[in-house]
Parts: sequence; structure tokens; C-alpha cells
Amino acid sequence: MYFQQKHVRDFVDKYKHRARLLISCPDQPGIVAAVTTFLHEQGANIVESNQYSTDPEGGMFFLRIEFDAPNIRDRQEEIEKKFATIAQRFAMDWKFSLHTHIKKVAIFVSKEEHCLLELLWEWQAGELLADFTLVISNHEQMRETVESFGIPYYYVPVTKETKQEAEAKQIELLKQYDVDVIVLARYMQILSPRFVSMFPARIINIHHSFLPAFIGARPYEQAYRRGVKLIGATSHYVTDDLDEGPIIEQDVERVDHKHHIEDLKRVGRIIEKTVLVRALKWHLEDRVIIHENKTIVFK
Amino acid sequence: MYFQQKHVRDFVDKYKHRARLLISCPDQPGIVAAVTTFLHEQGANIVESNQYSTDPEGGMFFLRIEFDAPNIRDRQEEIEKKFATIAQRFAMDWKFSLHTHIKKVAIFVSKEEHCLLELLWEWQAGELLADFTLVISNHEQMRETVESFGIPYYYVPVTKETKQEAEAKQIELLKQYDVDVIVLARYMQILSPRFVSMFPARIINIHHSFLPAFIGARPYEQAYRRGVKLIGATSHYVTDDLDEGPIIEQDVERVDHKHHIEDLKRVGRIIEKTVLVRALKWHLEDRVIIHENKTIVFK
Amino acid sequence: MYFQQKHVRDFVDKYKHRARLLISCPDQPGIVAAVTTFLHEQGANIVESNQYSTDPEGGMFFLRIEFDAPNIRDRQEEIEKKFATIAQRFAMDWKFSLHTHIKKVAIFVSKEEHCLLELLWEWQAGELLADFTLVISNHEQMRETVESFGIPYYYVPVTKETKQEAEAKQIELLKQYDVDVIVLARYMQILSPRFVSMFPARIINIHHSFLPAFIGARPYEQAYRRGVKLIGATSHYVTDDLDEGPIIEQDVERVDHKHHIEDLKRVGRIIEKTVLVRALKWHLEDRVIIHENKTIVFK
Amino acid sequence: MYFQQKHVRDFVDKYKHRARLLISCPDQPGIVAAVTTFLHEQGANIVESNQYSTDPEGGMFFLRIEFDAPNIRDRQEEIEKKFATIAQRFAMDWKFSLHTHIKKVAIFVSKEEHCLLELLWEWQAGELLADFTLVISNHEQMRETVESFGIPYYYVPVTKETKQEAEAKQIELLKQYDVDVIVLARYMQILSPRFVSMFPARIINIHHSFLPAFIGARPYEQAYRRGVKLIGATSHYVTDDLDEGPIIEQDVERVDHKHHIEDLKRVGRIIEKTVLVRALKWHLEDRVIIHENKTIVFK
Repeated sequence: MYFQQKHVRDFVDKYKHRARLLISCPDQPGIVAAVTTFLHEQGANIVESNQYSTDPEGGMFFLRIEFDAPNIRDRQEEIEKKFATIAQRFAMDWKFSLHTHIKKVAIFVSKEEHCLLELLWEWQAGELLADFTLVISNHEQMRETVESFGIPYYYVPVTKETKQEAEAKQIELLKQYDVDVIVLARYMQILSPRFVSMFPARIINIHHSFLPAFIGARPYEQAYRRGVKLIGATSHYVTDDLDEGPIIEQDVERVDHKHHIEDLKRVGRIIEKTVLVRALKWHLEDRVIIHENKTIVFK
Repeated sequence: MYFQQKHVRDFVDKYKHRARLLISCPDQPGIVAAVTTFLHEQGANIVESNQYSTDPEGGMFFLRIEFDAPNIRDRQEEIEKKFATIAQRFAMDWKFSLHTHIKKVAIFVSKEEHCLLELLWEWQAGELLADFTLVISNHEQMRETVESFGIPYYYVPVTKETKQEAEAKQIELLKQYDVDVIVLARYMQILSPRFVSMFPARIINIHHSFLPAFIGARPYEQAYRRGVKLIGATSHYVTDDLDEGPIIEQDVERVDHKHHIEDLKRVGRIIEKTVLVRALKWHLEDRVIIHENKTIVFK
Repeated sequence: MYFQQKHVRDFVDKYKHRARLLISCPDQPGIVAAVTTFLHEQGANIVESNQYSTDPEGGMFFLRIEFDAPNIRDRQEEIEKKFATIAQRFAMDWKFSLHTHIKKVAIFVSKEEHCLLELLWEWQAGELLADFTLVISNHEQMRETVESFGIPYYYVPVTKETKQEAEAKQIELLKQYDVDVIVLARYMQILSPRFVSMFPARIINIHHSFLPAFIGARPYEQAYRRGVKLIGATSHYVTDDLDEGPIIEQDVERVDHKHHIEDLKRVGRIIEKTVLVRALKWHLEDRVIIHENKTIVFK
Repeated sequence: MYFQQKHVRDFVDKYKHRARLLISCPDQPGIVAAVTTFLHEQGANIVESNQYSTDPEGGMFFLRIEFDAPNIRDRQEEIEKKFATIAQRFAMDWKFSLHTHIKKVAIFVSKEEHCLLELLWEWQAGELLADFTLVISNHEQMRETVESFGIPYYYVPVTKETKQEAEAKQIELLKQYDVDVIVLARYMQILSPRFVSMFPARIINIHHSFLPAFIGARPYEQAYRRGVKLIGATSHYVTDDLDEGPIIEQDVERVDHKHHIEDLKRVGRIIEKTVLVRALKWHLEDRVIIHENKTIVFK
């Protein structure tokens, strides 16, 4: 396992005994007791734990546990096998993942560079513990910047006519790089349902408005016309319904009548990039659980 | 001029020489020079001045000036007559108003009391320099509270059938009390176009969402279903288009997956009441100018 | 058990089977497993759980669990007895408390009424599930308001000379009413070390600044002179060091050069009252754990 | 006049007829009338105007006017000569400045790169209309990044012993480049009173706390120990009193008990860089007036 990013190598080395367990299941008494007892029997020490139940009487129960266990990397299979019986008993939807499994990220970008740059800088600063494997763009202009970070850059032009083959090319690249998560960093193309269906809950978008306000195109122009006193940005998982996917994070800033469209865009750029980084960070750490069309975020 | 509210009496006494001038007109060179020179010639001392132009080349220009002028109350008519020539030269839409002219407010309320109470408390604390002349409600329950503040309370029940006569009764009361501004403090009835048209730019509503998100009924339920990470409130002028009127003020608070609908309502109540008080305060001080469907707020 | 407040009666009735368990102890493997297994054996269903460890290797561990258990009120003693062995094993500092045990609150106030009023209104609205047993003030003026809520009001004047006997009188009242928590709602007197030592971690104050900025007297005047661009408020537990106690909650609002001291106070009033209500609410629900001079707040 | 930055060249070309006038003087009637009449006589069209008076009766008056005037660049001297008489009449402290006069900026940096990078990116994005003439650092490590933006990088090591000669070298560079404003982008050295006195109101610092809280070294460590629930950053002009200079801008973010020192630093980095950019932007546009130890910011 080699990572070109020093922070990532350090992290993987530091947390080689750490793993996380994510669980979703119908709520009932005894879940936490069973899970924590099991982990204790495996010699695991719980480092962090978050839980939430939509309704103690007959709702859904969600649990995220981080724990340290010696040699977890060698024992994962064995532990998962043992855990299966508990999982079955409580009808759990569950997932173990090791801190040493670093997610492979692909960034899609068009012409707006601020979100891409923020991702690269926060990655370089060690805030985003991921493997930035490639950047795909329908424009050439960001090649130099991206390659200066040692990340391969693929120019895949998209037109109405070529969209299908462009997506085919993109999918081929995503498979070639075995990508875990796709970040649309102000990528101004709409992905086809076919593309989206291939990466369920694995495509993160930043929308430049406080959704559900100003769905669709030109949100800042819409915000300007409506005369709102706050503008915002929303990071969400991509689904077939445009801008309707589960929201991961949102934030806003105050504006007033003096802000023309260009000013709104300037203020918005800062909100967009910080919101996107937060959302990706939580996703990389498996802190986000999708339930129906909403997210539970265990910060 | 008698006011039952001590803070108001003190204010009127303290600012008996103060007035404000509001101007809207096509932008062109020389407006400020002409206006300020005129005021100076009248012996006025400018205390506060705000201006905004949508576009220096051929846009609209907005100006709000607060000034002290001796005996302004006796001289208002004369000054307005003199000013008319300047106003004509620049095709101004303009208005002088004295600080001693305290606006008469009518509050409409249904069952939710938090906005009404906040208005009454801020009024009692001297933050809202207005004459709270009456409260109209389609329920009886707030009578005791309102009357304890020495404000007459009118119970005007509203049903689909009686709506028209109810509005007739309300309008009669508003005329009887010579009301300047109507505040809908979580008044859950929709006013008829006829009613609205009688009080243009004089009806202030608080909507319990960050408009234009969650227009219409049950915004907190909508917000809960959509899984937003911030909830808000919006105070706006009422027009015929439901929740589409010019926005005066908005604010938001952070929430997360743990917030059920009741929690959203609880958090929202605080946003609603603070936003409404701010909006009304600015309106009372003639700080809000409506332009197209937006507001210019000279804070 | 009788409560004069309907919301409280409803709450007590609704949650008669619910309790919470608070634990602090040195961190080590197996704590959660032991506790949750124990609760499961008692037929308890965990409704909410929060934990935090300062450092998984040899730090302190904190746990708060809310659970439903049939007839918990009759079984509390028995359960506590059984739990003692576990507690001993992990050297726990622990506390069971029933939702039906509603905390008795005393409010201290001077002349500023906004915090007192917000407490009373939020209490009346059912947001603060407490037994507001009495209000003590060094002024008479709030008597009518307080008594109109059906709460006894005690006037205990304080001067340099009479301070000691005044505190004696206050302590006598607090004992008479068997008070659990004391809220200083802008009570402008400094309590003696002797008084404070009698109510450790049970006195909540609202300081009208963003501590540790502007400790001591006249924070708004200090903030005005320093020209800060945000003002704030801080709710904290009272210790012998003035304004140095563990912080429960803080918040801020933006201001600018146009805000004179009176404006800062006006803006600050809203921050103060909302911050104090949040802090008290968390305390009432046993969500606040003091560790060293800081708080862990399990929201 | 050549600028290596395209945005700056475009700006200078677009606004070749625009200038701003800044005035501070004792308040009295007639100031605005005199100034705006004068500007009108010069064929100027007021584009933006802000004013503030500390106290209408005998306080200080501050005015900032942006205006368009044909060939202002050729006529500046003549206009200033004419204006002198008005300035004298009102005892004004005043300054005309052309939009075509782009300020020359020097950035001082140590090892923390986030503020430097944000400045460079916002500059490259055209948000900061300045001439970034050089970067001075007491470390070598940022050379490559800075030079990749086409900005000269000077390594001036500083030790207790060499401090004086280091400052001499720095001052020599600042003079050589004719620098207007110095930005301390997390420059961890304290400048000597002599150095500071040479650039009055021209050195902008970012302090990584919400001043006046946590003055001095290691503010995040201080914040962590104090257990504050919000952390912030402050941009201020540098004076001889460490961290006591006039505050230009501040902002905060919410944190909680889970945030260890490293987390506070991470959250803080984003606040620091956005606050510093805002402060510098306002300074570059002559929107900041220092009065006593406070700032008036005409946003």
C-alpha cells in the first residue's frame, strides 16, 4: 500500500490498529450491549462511539464505533465472520472498515477552480486523508495546477453529442483507478442516471445555494433577484433528482442590497469550498449515514 | 399627542427637532449636493446619511438622511413646499417624516404567542418606538396577556364562510385606530388580495422558514423531511403572492439529524421572534425602501 | 409530587419509566460493554447515549445514557445497589437520575429583567422542564411580574454592610425550598466564597461578554472601547474565581463602529438570554459534566 | 504603470476616471453640502458615499466618497488645490486617492502557509486588487510557492542576536519596493517599536484568537485550556502594544469539548485566512479609518 501523500502515509502508520464499525438496524433493546461486548471480547478498545435512533419504539437505530484492536488488519476477516451472527440476530446492515483503508478520490471540475484548489490545499495540509487519484475535467486549463500536486489530470470534453462516450471514458478511468468516491468540485455537467446509478452514495456535489432554495441553474442570479439577506451553499450526495439528494452539510453568509451578483459569487465561493471540504472529510471518515433521503452525520 | 408608553414619550420629547428624509429617484450627478445644500440652508444638521445606487450609470438612486432642524414640527409644511422644486428637478419620489410621528401598529396573532410576546417585551423595553394600538386575533386566548400591557384586544373569529366579514371588521378597526403598519405575528390566516391592496408595503409578516425555501404551509415539517442542516425565518412585506413579498430580514440556526420536528420548531421560535423584531424596528425607523421586489435596508 | 406547571406534570407523566445514567471514570477497555450489558439485563432500552474520552490511552472517560426501564421509580434503589459492583470495578464516579425528578430552580435577579423574563417564558412554553420554586432579588421591582407566574418573590436587599446577613437569609430560603440549582439571571452581586462553596457546580451565571474577554465590570463599555467587531455572552458555573468558572455555552453577534454602548447592550440582551436558557436547559437534563475547569456538554 | 497581475491591469483600465475622497474632521453643519457641491462643480458623479459621526453635537465626522470624474488622473493636483480651501474651513484631515493607484503590498510569513496561500489565491482570483511586490520570510520553505506566482521571495533569517540587522534588511527591501502596506500573514516575529513607527497604520496582522481574549502566545492552547465554545481570529493594525492595535475584522466558529488543540488550530486556520483577506481588502479600498484605537469600516 503506497500513498504519494506524506500525511496519508503517517496516518496509516499511526492508526494501523484502528478500525470503525458502522451499523444500521431496526431499534430494539440489547444492540449496544451485544456489539460492545463482542468488541471487548475481541480485545478492542472503543475510542469513539456515536448512536442515534429515529424512534426508540420501533424506529431505526444507527451506530458508529471507532476502536483499537491489535493486528486488526490480519484479523478483519475472522472478526467479520464472528460478528456475522450478531449482525444476523439484529438484522443489521453493517460495515467494518480499517483506518488503513484510505479512500480513493476522483475530482471532477470544470472552469471554476476555488473548490478544486481548496480540496488540494486541505489535502496537502493533511486535513483530507484520502488518496487523490485523478482529476477529470471538461476543460484543459487546470492541468498545470493539478499536475503540480502530482495528480494525473484527464481532459474529457463533453458536448451534447459526445456526452455518452464522454461518460464511458470517465467510467473507464474511475474503474482503472478503482475510485471510492467522486467529488464534483463545481463540475458544471449533469451526470446521466446511468452514471449516477453506478456510484450510489459515492458522488458528492457542492451546490452553490442553500438548498432547497434556488434549485437548478444560476442560483446566485436567482438569489440576487429574490433579494435574500443570506446566501449559502450545500454539499449533498448526487441522486437522479437534480439537487434533491441527501444533504451532508450547508452553511450561509450574510449579504445585503449592496451585493451585486458578482459580490454574491465572491462571498459564495468561500462558503462553497469550506462546506465541500467539511462534507468530504466526514465522508472519508465514514461519519455520514444515509437514511431515506437524509443524512445522519456523526461528527 | 399622547402615548401610553413611557419610552415613546421620552423619545418624542428627546427628538422633537429631528426628522428624516427618504428619496428614490433616477441616478444622476448633483443629487446629494442639491439635497444637502438645501438642508444646510434650512439650518439642518445631518446626523446620519445612507445612500445606494443600483448602477451609477442610469440606475436608481436611494437616499435616507436624518437631520436636526430647530422647530421642524412647525416648519415641516414650509420646508416641504420649498423642497418640492428640487424634488421635481430630479424626479424624486420623496418623504419627510418627523421623529415625533410615531407609527401606529396593529398586531395580528393566532395561537402561537412567542412573536407577540417578544414584540410586547421589546416594546416595553423601549426597543420598538411605536404606538401599539391594538391586537387582533382569531382566538381569545391571548386577551389577558395583551390587556395586561394596556393594549385593546379584539377577537375576530375567521372561518371560510365568515372570512369576508371578518376582514371587513378588521379593516374597520384598522381605520378606527388609524393604523400605519400591520404586523402578522404568526397570524395563520391568509389575507385576501383586497385586504392586502389596502395596505401596500404596510403589512409585515414573519414566515417560519428561510425563504424561498419551504414556501407555504408547515415549513418545519418540510425542513425536517428535506433534512436541511440549518433552519431559518424570514420577515417580509406581504403582497398578493404568498411568501413572495420583498424580504426585510432573515436569519438561520444550525440543526442536525437529532432535531425532530418539535426541536426545529423550538429552535425556530427564537429565530422567528428576533428576525421579526429587527424587521419591524427598521420599518418603524423608515430604514427600509422597497425597490421592485427587493428591499434596501439602511441599517 | 406536585408541580404547579402543566408542562412539567405532562412530562413527568410521559417519562415515568425513563432515567439517565452519568458516568466519569478512568478510560479502559470494556466500560461500555459492562454498562450496556448491565442495563440490558435490567430490561432497560437505551434511548440516547453519548460518550467522550479525553485520551483513549489513559485518559478520562465520560458517559451519559438515557434509557427506559419499567417501574424504574420503584426499582431505582435495587438497580443502584446492583450497579455498585460495576462502578467499583471501573472506579466510576456515577449518578442515576429519574426523568421524574424535576430540578428545583431558584432565580436570582437584580434590575435587568430580560434574562428573568426569557426564563419565565421558556418555562411557561414548556422548554425548561424545571420547578421554578422562587425568585430572590435585591430589588422589589420584578415582584408583580414574577408573582403573576405564580412564583414566590423574595426581596433581599444587599449592601456592603448587610451582605453577610443577606446571604444568610438567601441560604435559608434556598434550604427551605430545597433548591437544586441557582440561576443568576443578571444578578449584579458577587457571591461570597462561603456561599459558592455551599452549592458546588449548582450555580449558573450569565456573563455579558465573550469570556475570557472583558472579565469583570461593565463588559459592554470595555467592548466599546476596544472596538471589537463581535460581542457575546457566556453562561458558566460560578466558582470562587470571578468569571473563571467552567463555561457551559457562549454565543456572539456582529456589531460595527455605529454601535454605541446602548446598542451593544441591546444586541447583547438577546445573546445573553438565549445563551442562558440553553445552558440551563442542558443542566436540567444532566447533559453537562464538569471536568477540571471545562465542561463536556452532551447535546 | 505596469502590473504583473492581469486582474489589476483590467481594474486600472476600467476605473481610470474613478477616485475616492476620505475625510475626518470635527462635526458641524454643512460639511456634506460643501463637499458634494464642490465635487459636483468638478463634474464628478458620486458613486458611493459613507459617513459616520461619533456624536452629532461636537463629535468627529468621517466621510468616504467614491466618484467618477473625467480625466481625474490629469486633474488631481488642480482639484486638490481647489479643495484645500474647503478642507481648511472645516479643519479636515483629508485624502484623495485614484483607483489607478494600486497599493504595493509586502507579505511577511514564517512557516504557517495557509494565510499566505489564501492571499495569493484571492489575489490571483482578482479579489485583492493590489501589487504583491515581495514576500519576506524568516524561513526558506515557501520560496517555490511564492516564486511560482511570479513574486520575489526574500529569506531574512531572524535570531535574537540578528534581529536588528534583520529589520534593517527588511526596511531596506520595503523602501526599495516602495511598499504601501505590510501584511503579517502569521509572521511569528514581534516587530520592534522602531520598525512599527516607520509604518504607522500600514502594518496589518492576523491574530489567531478573538481579541482581547488570549492575547500573546499560543492562543489555541489558551482557548483549549479555558474551554471556550467558540474560537476566533482578529485582524488588526500593528501598534507598539502587542495585540492591542485597532481591530479591523474578527470572526468566530463554534467548537466543543471534542476539539483538541489540533482541531482548534484546523478550524482556526479557516477563520484566520478569511478574516485577514477581508481586512486587507477593505484596507486596499481605503474603507478603514482609524479613530483613537478603533476602526471605522465603510463596507
